[in-house]
Amino acid sequence: MTIREQLIEYRDGDVVLEGFLCHDESRRGPLPAVLISHTWSGRDEFVERKARRLAYHGYATFALDMYGKGRRGSSPEENQVLMDPFMQDRALLSRRINAALSAVKALPQVDSRRVAAMGFCFGGLCALDLARSGAELRGTVSFHGLLKPSGLPAAKILSKVLILHGYDDPLAPPQDVLAIAQELTQADVDWQLHAYGHTVHSFTNPAANNREMGMLYSAPAERRSWNALIQFLEEVLR
Amino acid sequence: MTIREQLIEYRDGDVVLEGFLCHDESRRGPLPAVLISHTWSGRDEFVERKARRLAYHGYATFALDMYGKGRRGSSPEENQVLMDPFMQDRALLSRRINAALSAVKALPQVDSRRVAAMGFCFGGLCALDLARSGAELRGTVSFHGLLKPSGLPAAKILSKVLILHGYDDPLAPPQDVLAIAQELTQADVDWQLHAYGHTVHSFTNPAANNREMGMLYSAPAERRSWNALIQFLEEVLR
Repeated sequence: MTIREQLIEYRDGDVVLEGFLCHDESRRGPLPAVLISHTWSGRDEFVERKARRLAYHGYATFALDMYGKGRRGSSPEENQVLMDPFMQDRALLSRRINAALSAVKALPQVDSRRVAAMGFCFGGLCALDLARSGAELRGTVSFHGLLKPSGLPAAKILSKVLILHGYDDPLAPPQDVLAIAQELTQADVDWQLHAYGHTVHSFTNPAANNREMGMLYSAPAERRSWNALIQFLEEVLR
Repeated sequence: MTIREQLIEYRDGDVVLEGFLCHDESRRGPLPAVLISHTWSGRDEFVERKARRLAYHGYATFALDMYGKGRRGSSPEENQVLMDPFMQDRALLSRRINAALSAVKALPQVDSRRVAAMGFCFGGLCALDLARSGAELRGTVSFHGLLKPSGLPAAKILSKVLILHGYDDPLAPPQDVLAIAQELTQADVDWQLHAYGHTVHSFTNPAANNREMGMLYSAPAERRSWNALIQFLEEVLR
Protein backbone atom coordinates (compact mmCIF):
# COMPACT_ATOMS: atom_id res chain seq x y z
CA MET A 1 0.00 0.00 0.00
CA THR A 2 1.35 3.41 -1.03
CA ILE A 3 -0.93 6.26 -0.05
CA ARG A 4 -0.19 9.35 -2.09
CA GLU A 5 -1.40 12.78 -0.97
CA GLN A 6 -1.69 15.72 -3.36
CA LEU A 7 -3.11 19.21 -3.34
CA ILE A 8 -5.28 19.79 -6.40
CA GLU A 9 -6.34 23.21 -7.62
CA TYR A 10 -9.70 23.59 -9.28
CA ARG A 11 -12.14 26.43 -9.96
CA ASP A 12 -15.68 27.57 -9.56
CA GLY A 13 -15.83 30.39 -12.11
CA ASP A 14 -13.17 32.86 -11.02
CA VAL A 15 -12.74 31.40 -7.54
CA VAL A 16 -9.66 29.23 -7.07
CA LEU A 17 -10.20 26.27 -4.75
CA GLU A 18 -7.80 23.69 -3.41
CA GLY A 19 -8.70 20.10 -2.59
CA PHE A 20 -6.68 17.37 -0.91
CA LEU A 21 -6.53 14.09 -2.84
CA CYS A 22 -5.48 10.76 -1.34
CA HIS A 23 -5.25 7.44 -3.07
CA ASP A 24 -3.40 4.16 -2.86
CA GLU A 25 -0.99 4.12 -5.79
CA SER A 26 -0.46 0.39 -5.43
CA ARG A 27 -4.09 -0.28 -6.42
CA ARG A 28 -5.00 -0.58 -10.03
CA GLY A 29 -7.17 2.37 -10.98
CA PRO A 30 -9.32 4.11 -11.81
CA LEU A 31 -10.69 3.97 -8.28
CA PRO A 32 -14.13 4.69 -6.87
CA ALA A 33 -14.04 8.12 -5.26
CA VAL A 34 -15.38 9.84 -2.18
CA LEU A 35 -15.76 13.61 -1.85
CA ILE A 36 -15.39 14.86 1.71
CA SER A 37 -16.96 18.17 2.58
CA HIS A 38 -15.57 20.15 5.52
CA THR A 39 -17.21 21.74 8.55
CA TRP A 40 -17.73 25.48 8.84
CA SER A 41 -13.97 25.77 9.63
CA GLY A 42 -12.94 25.11 6.05
CA ARG A 43 -10.70 22.37 4.63
CA ASP A 44 -8.52 21.48 7.57
CA GLU A 45 -6.63 18.64 9.22
CA PHE A 46 -9.91 17.10 10.41
CA VAL A 47 -11.18 16.26 6.92
CA GLU A 48 -7.70 15.46 5.66
CA ARG A 49 -7.44 12.76 8.31
CA LYS A 50 -10.75 11.30 7.17
CA ALA A 51 -9.50 11.34 3.56
CA ARG A 52 -6.33 9.52 4.54
CA ARG A 53 -8.19 6.96 6.61
CA LEU A 54 -10.68 6.19 3.84
CA ALA A 55 -7.96 5.92 1.21
CA TYR A 56 -6.76 2.78 2.99
CA HIS A 57 -10.07 1.19 2.02
CA GLY A 58 -9.24 1.64 -1.64
CA TYR A 59 -11.05 4.84 -2.46
CA ALA A 60 -9.66 7.94 -4.10
CA THR A 61 -10.67 10.51 -1.52
CA PHE A 62 -10.93 14.23 -2.04
CA ALA A 63 -11.26 16.70 0.80
CA LEU A 64 -12.92 19.46 -1.16
CA ASP A 65 -12.83 23.19 -0.60
CA MET A 66 -15.96 25.34 -0.35
CA TYR A 67 -14.30 28.60 0.69
CA GLY A 68 -11.36 29.22 -1.64
CA LYS A 69 -7.65 28.33 -1.59
CA GLY A 70 -6.17 28.89 1.87
CA ARG A 71 -9.36 30.30 3.39
CA ARG A 72 -9.99 28.77 6.81
CA GLY A 73 -11.52 30.03 10.02
CA SER A 74 -9.74 29.94 13.35
CA SER A 75 -12.62 30.96 15.61
CA PRO A 76 -16.39 30.42 15.65
CA GLU A 77 -16.80 34.05 14.52
CA GLU A 78 -14.50 33.60 11.52
CA ASN A 79 -16.15 30.29 10.66
CA GLN A 80 -19.55 31.93 10.73
CA VAL A 81 -18.40 34.67 8.35
CA LEU A 82 -17.04 32.06 5.95
CA MET A 83 -20.14 29.85 6.09
CA ASP A 84 -22.89 32.49 6.05
CA PRO A 85 -22.81 33.37 2.33
CA PHE A 86 -23.50 29.71 1.50
CA MET A 87 -26.28 29.32 4.03
CA GLN A 88 -27.90 32.46 2.65
CA ASP A 89 -27.44 31.43 -0.97
CA ARG A 90 -27.99 27.73 -1.38
CA ALA A 91 -27.67 28.06 -5.15
CA LEU A 92 -24.10 29.29 -4.59
CA LEU A 93 -23.49 26.36 -2.24
CA SER A 94 -24.83 23.93 -4.82
CA ARG A 95 -22.72 25.40 -7.64
CA ARG A 96 -19.60 25.39 -5.46
CA ILE A 97 -19.85 21.74 -4.47
CA ASN A 98 -20.78 20.72 -7.99
CA ALA A 99 -17.47 22.28 -9.07
CA ALA A 100 -15.68 19.88 -6.73
CA LEU A 101 -17.59 16.94 -8.16
CA SER A 102 -16.65 17.94 -11.71
CA ALA A 103 -13.01 18.32 -10.70
CA VAL A 104 -12.94 14.89 -9.07
CA LYS A 105 -14.64 13.18 -11.99
CA ALA A 106 -11.99 14.57 -14.32
CA LEU A 107 -9.07 13.13 -12.31
CA PRO A 108 -7.26 10.22 -14.01
CA GLN A 109 -7.22 8.28 -10.72
CA VAL A 110 -11.03 8.32 -10.51
CA ASP A 111 -13.73 6.12 -11.99
CA SER A 112 -16.25 8.88 -12.72
CA ARG A 113 -19.18 6.45 -12.61
CA ARG A 114 -18.46 5.47 -9.00
CA VAL A 115 -18.46 8.57 -6.83
CA ALA A 116 -19.99 9.23 -3.43
CA ALA A 117 -20.06 12.37 -1.27
CA MET A 118 -19.93 12.81 2.48
CA GLY A 119 -19.55 15.68 4.86
CA PHE A 120 -19.52 16.87 8.45
CA CYS A 121 -21.80 19.50 10.01
CA PHE A 122 -22.02 22.27 7.34
CA GLY A 123 -20.33 19.74 5.04
CA GLY A 124 -23.14 17.26 5.64
CA LEU A 125 -25.53 19.86 4.29
CA CYS A 126 -23.21 20.47 1.33
CA ALA A 127 -23.18 16.74 0.51
CA LEU A 128 -26.98 16.60 0.80
CA ASP A 129 -27.35 19.67 -1.40
CA LEU A 130 -25.10 18.02 -3.99
CA ALA A 131 -27.49 15.07 -4.05
CA ARG A 132 -30.46 17.45 -4.09
CA SER A 133 -29.02 19.21 -7.13
CA GLY A 134 -29.51 16.01 -9.15
CA ALA A 135 -25.79 15.29 -9.43
CA GLU A 136 -24.71 11.86 -10.68
CA LEU A 137 -23.62 10.30 -7.44
CA ARG A 138 -23.91 6.76 -6.09
CA GLY A 139 -24.21 7.73 -2.44
CA THR A 140 -24.36 10.63 -0.01
CA VAL A 141 -23.51 10.50 3.70
CA SER A 142 -24.15 13.26 6.23
CA PHE A 143 -22.40 13.18 9.63
CA HIS A 144 -24.12 15.42 12.19
CA GLY A 145 -25.20 17.57 9.27
CA LEU A 146 -27.69 20.37 9.03
CA LEU A 147 -30.85 19.00 7.47
CA LYS A 148 -32.77 22.12 6.43
CA PRO A 149 -34.29 21.95 2.94
CA SER A 150 -32.50 23.97 0.27
CA GLY A 151 -35.56 25.86 -0.94
CA LEU A 152 -34.29 25.38 -4.51
CA PRO A 153 -36.45 23.80 -7.22
CA ALA A 154 -36.41 20.03 -6.72
CA ALA A 155 -34.21 18.02 -9.08
CA LYS A 156 -34.40 14.24 -9.41
CA ILE A 157 -32.13 12.86 -6.68
CA LEU A 158 -30.04 10.02 -8.13
CA SER A 159 -28.04 9.18 -5.02
CA LYS A 160 -28.74 6.85 -2.12
CA VAL A 161 -28.64 8.81 1.12
CA LEU A 162 -27.40 7.88 4.60
CA ILE A 163 -27.86 10.37 7.44
CA LEU A 164 -25.85 9.80 10.62
CA HIS A 165 -27.43 11.88 13.30
CA GLY A 166 -27.03 12.69 16.99
CA TYR A 167 -30.59 12.65 18.29
CA ASP A 168 -29.92 15.54 20.69
CA ASP A 169 -28.18 17.69 18.08
CA PRO A 170 -29.49 21.21 18.73
CA LEU A 171 -28.75 22.15 15.10
CA ALA A 172 -30.99 19.38 13.74
CA PRO A 173 -33.96 18.94 16.10
CA PRO A 174 -36.60 16.19 15.71
CA GLN A 175 -38.80 18.38 13.49
CA ASP A 176 -35.92 18.67 10.99
CA VAL A 177 -35.52 14.89 11.08
CA LEU A 178 -39.22 14.40 10.35
CA ALA A 179 -39.02 16.98 7.57
CA ILE A 180 -36.07 15.41 5.77
CA ALA A 181 -37.61 11.94 6.13
CA GLN A 182 -40.68 13.31 4.40
CA GLU A 183 -38.65 15.21 1.77
CA LEU A 184 -36.57 12.15 0.83
CA THR A 185 -39.59 9.85 0.88
CA GLN A 186 -41.55 12.13 -1.43
CA ALA A 187 -38.51 12.43 -3.70
CA ASP A 188 -38.46 8.60 -3.91
CA VAL A 189 -34.88 8.43 -2.64
CA ASP A 190 -33.34 5.27 -1.16
CA TRP A 191 -32.61 6.78 2.27
CA GLN A 192 -31.58 5.70 5.76
CA LEU A 193 -31.20 7.69 8.94
CA HIS A 194 -29.25 6.38 11.93
CA ALA A 195 -30.06 8.25 15.11
CA TYR A 196 -27.78 7.93 18.12
CA GLY A 197 -29.23 8.62 21.56
CA HIS A 198 -27.49 10.99 24.01
CA THR A 199 -25.47 12.32 21.10
CA VAL A 200 -25.21 15.92 20.01
CA HIS A 201 -23.49 17.91 17.26
CA SER A 202 -19.85 17.31 16.20
CA PHE A 203 -19.85 13.76 17.61
CA THR A 204 -17.03 12.65 15.29
CA ASN A 205 -14.69 15.44 16.34
CA PRO A 206 -12.40 14.55 19.28
CA ALA A 207 -11.79 18.28 19.82
CA ALA A 208 -15.48 19.08 20.37
CA ASN A 209 -16.09 19.65 24.08
CA ASN A 210 -18.74 22.33 24.43
CA ARG A 211 -21.64 20.67 26.21
CA GLU A 212 -23.58 23.93 26.62
CA MET A 213 -23.50 24.57 22.85
CA GLY A 214 -24.41 20.95 22.17
CA MET A 215 -21.11 20.14 20.45
CA LEU A 216 -19.46 17.11 22.00
CA TYR A 217 -17.30 14.22 20.90
CA SER A 218 -18.73 10.71 21.36
CA ALA A 219 -16.39 7.75 20.86
CA PRO A 220 -19.23 5.19 20.46
CA ALA A 221 -21.14 7.36 17.99
CA GLU A 222 -17.96 8.04 16.03
CA ARG A 223 -17.18 4.32 15.81
CA ARG A 224 -20.74 3.36 14.91
CA SER A 225 -21.07 6.05 12.28
CA TRP A 226 -17.72 5.19 10.73
CA ASN A 227 -18.72 1.52 10.49
CA ALA A 228 -22.00 2.56 8.89
CA LEU A 229 -20.08 4.70 6.39
CA ILE A 230 -17.73 1.86 5.42
CA GLN A 231 -20.63 -0.53 4.92
CA PHE A 232 -22.59 2.01 2.90
CA LEU A 233 -19.63 2.80 0.62
CA GLU A 234 -19.10 -0.94 0.07
CA GLU A 235 -22.73 -1.16 -0.98
CA VAL A 236 -22.81 1.80 -3.36
CA LEU A 237 -19.26 1.96 -4.80
CA ARG A 238 -18.13 -1.67 -5.33
CA MET B 1 -17.68 -25.87 12.40
CA THR B 2 -20.34 -28.23 13.72
CA ILE B 3 -23.67 -26.54 14.26
CA ARG B 4 -25.84 -28.51 16.67
CA GLU B 5 -29.59 -27.90 16.89
CA GLN B 6 -31.65 -28.94 19.92
CA LEU B 7 -35.15 -28.45 21.21
CA ILE B 8 -35.06 -27.31 24.83
CA GLU B 9 -38.06 -27.45 27.14
CA TYR B 10 -38.43 -24.82 29.82
CA ARG B 11 -41.23 -23.39 31.91
CA ASP B 12 -42.99 -20.22 32.96
CA GLY B 13 -44.88 -21.43 36.04
CA ASP B 14 -47.10 -24.25 34.81
CA VAL B 15 -46.75 -23.41 31.14
CA VAL B 16 -44.37 -25.65 29.19
CA LEU B 17 -42.41 -23.83 26.51
CA GLU B 18 -40.04 -25.12 23.87
CA GLY B 19 -37.06 -23.21 22.50
CA PHE B 20 -34.71 -24.03 19.64
CA LEU B 21 -31.03 -23.88 20.53
CA CYS B 22 -28.20 -23.68 18.00
CA HIS B 23 -24.52 -23.54 18.67
CA ASP B 24 -21.22 -24.43 17.08
CA GLU B 25 -19.89 -27.43 19.00
CA SER B 26 -16.42 -26.94 17.58
CA ARG B 27 -16.05 -23.64 19.44
CA ARG B 28 -14.81 -23.64 22.94
CA GLY B 29 -17.61 -22.54 25.27
CA PRO B 30 -19.29 -21.13 27.12
CA LEU B 31 -20.48 -18.92 24.27
CA PRO B 32 -22.12 -15.51 24.24
CA ALA B 33 -25.82 -16.02 23.60
CA VAL B 34 -28.61 -14.38 21.62
CA LEU B 35 -32.30 -14.86 22.40
CA ILE B 36 -34.53 -14.59 19.35
CA SER B 37 -38.15 -13.70 19.85
CA HIS B 38 -40.69 -14.73 17.23
CA THR B 39 -43.39 -12.81 15.38
CA TRP B 40 -47.08 -13.15 16.22
CA SER B 41 -47.02 -16.54 14.40
CA GLY B 42 -45.11 -18.25 17.20
CA ARG B 43 -41.75 -20.04 17.09
CA ASP B 44 -41.49 -21.12 13.49
CA GLU B 45 -39.08 -21.82 10.68
CA PHE B 46 -38.50 -18.07 10.22
CA VAL B 47 -36.82 -17.56 13.61
CA GLU B 48 -35.12 -20.96 13.48
CA ARG B 49 -33.39 -19.87 10.26
CA LYS B 50 -32.18 -16.71 12.01
CA ALA B 51 -30.90 -18.81 14.92
CA ARG B 52 -29.00 -21.10 12.58
CA ARG B 53 -27.55 -18.20 10.61
CA LEU B 54 -26.35 -16.39 13.74
CA ALA B 55 -24.84 -19.55 15.23
CA TYR B 56 -22.27 -19.46 12.42
CA HIS B 57 -20.99 -16.22 13.94
CA GLY B 58 -20.13 -18.04 17.15
CA TYR B 59 -23.16 -17.31 19.29
CA ALA B 60 -25.35 -19.78 21.12
CA THR B 61 -28.72 -18.79 19.72
CA PHE B 62 -32.08 -19.58 21.22
CA ALA B 63 -35.35 -19.14 19.33
CA LEU B 64 -37.57 -18.74 22.35
CA ASP B 65 -41.23 -19.58 22.74
CA MET B 66 -43.80 -17.10 24.05
CA TYR B 67 -46.93 -19.18 23.39
CA GLY B 68 -46.33 -22.68 24.75
CA LYS B 69 -44.93 -25.91 23.33
CA GLY B 70 -46.31 -26.58 19.86
CA ARG B 71 -48.60 -23.54 19.80
CA ARG B 72 -48.33 -21.72 16.50
CA GLY B 73 -50.74 -19.76 14.35
CA SER B 74 -51.42 -20.56 10.71
CA SER B 75 -53.53 -17.53 9.81
CA PRO B 76 -53.64 -13.86 10.82
CA GLU B 77 -56.74 -14.64 12.90
CA GLU B 78 -55.02 -17.45 14.81
CA ASN B 79 -51.91 -15.32 15.29
CA GLN B 80 -54.01 -12.51 16.70
CA VAL B 81 -55.64 -14.86 19.20
CA LEU B 82 -52.23 -16.12 20.33
CA MET B 83 -50.69 -12.64 20.61
CA ASP B 84 -53.58 -10.70 22.18
CA PRO B 85 -53.22 -11.94 25.78
CA PHE B 86 -49.65 -10.62 25.82
CA MET B 87 -50.51 -7.27 24.28
CA GLN B 88 -53.27 -6.85 26.84
CA ASP B 89 -51.10 -7.96 29.75
CA ARG B 90 -47.58 -6.64 29.36
CA ALA B 91 -46.67 -8.00 32.80
CA LEU B 92 -47.44 -11.51 31.50
CA LEU B 93 -45.34 -10.75 28.40
CA SER B 94 -42.46 -9.58 30.57
CA ARG B 95 -42.62 -12.63 32.86
CA ARG B 96 -42.81 -15.00 29.88
CA ILE B 97 -39.74 -13.62 28.12
CA ASN B 98 -37.83 -13.41 31.39
CA ALA B 99 -38.46 -17.17 31.73
CA ALA B 100 -36.66 -17.66 28.43
CA LEU B 101 -33.76 -15.53 29.59
CA SER B 102 -33.43 -17.57 32.80
CA ALA B 103 -33.54 -20.82 30.84
CA VAL B 104 -30.83 -19.64 28.46
CA LYS B 105 -28.57 -18.38 31.22
CA ALA B 106 -28.74 -21.81 32.88
CA LEU B 107 -27.56 -23.65 29.76
CA PRO B 108 -24.04 -25.09 30.04
CA GLN B 109 -23.23 -23.83 26.51
CA VAL B 110 -23.92 -20.22 27.50
CA ASP B 111 -21.82 -17.53 29.16
CA SER B 112 -24.55 -16.00 31.30
CA ARG B 113 -22.78 -12.64 31.52
CA ARG B 114 -22.86 -12.18 27.74
CA VAL B 115 -26.43 -12.38 26.53
CA ALA B 116 -28.38 -10.24 24.07
CA ALA B 117 -31.98 -10.39 22.90
CA MET B 118 -33.54 -9.66 19.54
CA GLY B 119 -36.93 -10.10 17.96
CA PHE B 120 -39.15 -9.49 14.98
CA CYS B 121 -42.48 -7.58 14.93
CA PHE B 122 -44.26 -8.73 18.14
CA GLY B 123 -40.92 -10.29 19.08
CA GLY B 124 -39.21 -6.91 18.77
CA LEU B 125 -41.60 -5.63 21.41
CA CYS B 126 -40.89 -8.72 23.56
CA ALA B 127 -37.13 -8.06 23.36
CA LEU B 128 -37.67 -4.39 24.24
CA ASP B 129 -39.93 -5.33 27.14
CA LEU B 130 -37.23 -7.70 28.39
CA ALA B 131 -34.81 -4.77 28.46
CA ARG B 132 -37.48 -2.55 30.02
CA SER B 133 -37.95 -5.11 32.80
CA GLY B 134 -34.42 -4.40 34.01
CA ALA B 135 -33.06 -7.80 32.90
CA GLU B 136 -29.30 -8.28 32.85
CA LEU B 137 -28.68 -8.09 29.14
CA ARG B 138 -25.83 -6.64 27.09
CA GLY B 139 -27.92 -5.67 24.09
CA THR B 140 -31.42 -5.62 22.65
CA VAL B 141 -32.33 -5.44 18.96
CA SER B 142 -35.79 -4.86 17.54
CA PHE B 143 -36.52 -5.62 13.88
CA HIS B 144 -39.69 -3.88 12.62
CA GLY B 145 -40.95 -4.14 16.16
CA LEU B 146 -43.88 -2.54 17.87
CA LEU B 147 -42.60 0.35 19.94
CA LYS B 148 -45.50 1.14 22.29
CA PRO B 149 -44.49 1.72 25.92
CA SER B 150 -45.28 -1.14 28.30
CA GLY B 151 -47.14 0.98 30.84
CA LEU B 152 -45.39 -0.99 33.59
CA PRO B 153 -43.39 0.72 36.36
CA ALA B 154 -40.01 1.72 34.94
CA ALA B 155 -37.04 -0.45 35.91
CA LYS B 156 -33.43 0.56 35.31
CA ILE B 157 -32.63 -0.55 31.75
CA LEU B 158 -29.19 -2.20 31.71
CA SER B 159 -29.05 -3.08 28.02
CA LYS B 160 -27.89 -1.12 25.00
CA VAL B 161 -30.72 -0.87 22.48
CA LEU B 162 -30.75 -0.93 18.68
CA ILE B 163 -34.04 -0.38 16.85
CA LEU B 164 -34.18 -1.32 13.17
CA HIS B 165 -37.22 0.34 11.74
CA GLY B 166 -39.08 0.71 8.45
CA TYR B 167 -39.99 4.38 8.36
CA ASP B 168 -43.34 3.67 6.67
CA ASP B 169 -44.27 0.85 9.07
CA PRO B 170 -47.98 1.41 9.77
CA LEU B 171 -47.62 -0.43 13.10
CA ALA B 172 -44.95 1.99 14.35
CA PRO B 173 -45.72 5.48 13.00
CA PRO B 174 -43.46 8.52 13.48
CA GLN B 175 -45.13 9.49 16.77
CA ASP B 176 -44.17 6.08 18.22
CA VAL B 177 -40.59 6.64 17.06
CA LEU B 178 -40.48 10.03 18.76
CA ALA B 179 -42.02 8.53 21.89
CA ILE B 180 -39.52 5.69 22.22
CA ALA B 181 -36.61 8.05 21.51
CA GLN B 182 -37.84 10.16 24.39
CA GLU B 183 -38.46 7.14 26.64
CA LEU B 184 -34.98 5.69 26.09
CA THR B 185 -33.32 9.08 26.40
CA GLN B 186 -35.04 9.78 29.71
CA ALA B 187 -34.13 6.28 30.90
CA ASP B 188 -30.48 7.11 30.12
CA VAL B 189 -30.15 4.11 27.78
CA ASP B 190 -27.42 3.80 25.15
CA TRP B 191 -29.78 3.63 22.19
CA GLN B 192 -29.72 3.80 18.40
CA LEU B 193 -32.50 3.79 15.85
CA HIS B 194 -31.91 3.03 12.18
CA ALA B 195 -34.79 4.14 9.99
CA TYR B 196 -35.08 2.84 6.44
CA GLY B 197 -37.02 4.91 3.93
CA HIS B 198 -39.73 3.33 1.74
CA THR B 199 -39.77 0.37 4.09
CA VAL B 200 -42.77 -1.03 5.92
CA HIS B 201 -43.50 -3.79 8.41
CA SER B 202 -42.03 -7.32 8.08
CA PHE B 203 -39.15 -6.12 5.91
CA THR B 204 -36.95 -9.09 6.87
CA ASN B 205 -39.53 -11.68 5.88
CA PRO B 206 -39.26 -12.86 2.25
CA ALA B 207 -42.82 -14.19 2.49
CA ALA B 208 -44.31 -10.79 3.35
CA ASN B 209 -46.10 -9.42 0.30
CA ASN B 210 -49.14 -7.50 1.46
CA ARG B 211 -48.60 -3.93 0.32
CA GLU B 212 -52.08 -2.80 1.38
CA MET B 213 -51.49 -3.99 4.95
CA GLY B 214 -48.03 -2.42 4.95
CA MET B 215 -46.21 -5.75 5.30
CA LEU B 216 -43.61 -6.17 2.60
CA TYR B 217 -40.22 -7.78 2.21
CA SER B 218 -37.30 -5.48 1.35
CA ALA B 219 -34.00 -7.09 0.33
CA PRO B 220 -31.92 -3.92 0.92
CA ALA B 221 -33.47 -3.28 4.34
CA GLU B 222 -33.00 -6.93 5.31
CA ARG B 223 -29.33 -6.82 4.31
CA ARG B 224 -28.69 -3.48 6.01
CA SER B 225 -30.45 -4.47 9.21
CA TRP B 226 -28.63 -7.80 9.37
CA ASN B 227 -25.28 -6.05 8.95
CA ALA B 228 -26.26 -3.63 11.71
CA LEU B 229 -27.17 -6.57 13.96
CA ILE B 230 -23.86 -8.34 13.38
CA GLN B 231 -21.91 -5.17 14.14
CA PHE B 232 -23.96 -4.45 17.25
CA LEU B 233 -23.53 -8.00 18.61
CA GLU B 234 -19.78 -7.73 18.01
CA GLU B 235 -19.79 -4.56 20.04
CA VAL B 236 -21.84 -5.78 23.00
CA LEU B 237 -20.99 -9.50 23.25
CA ARG B 238 -17.28 -9.84 22.44
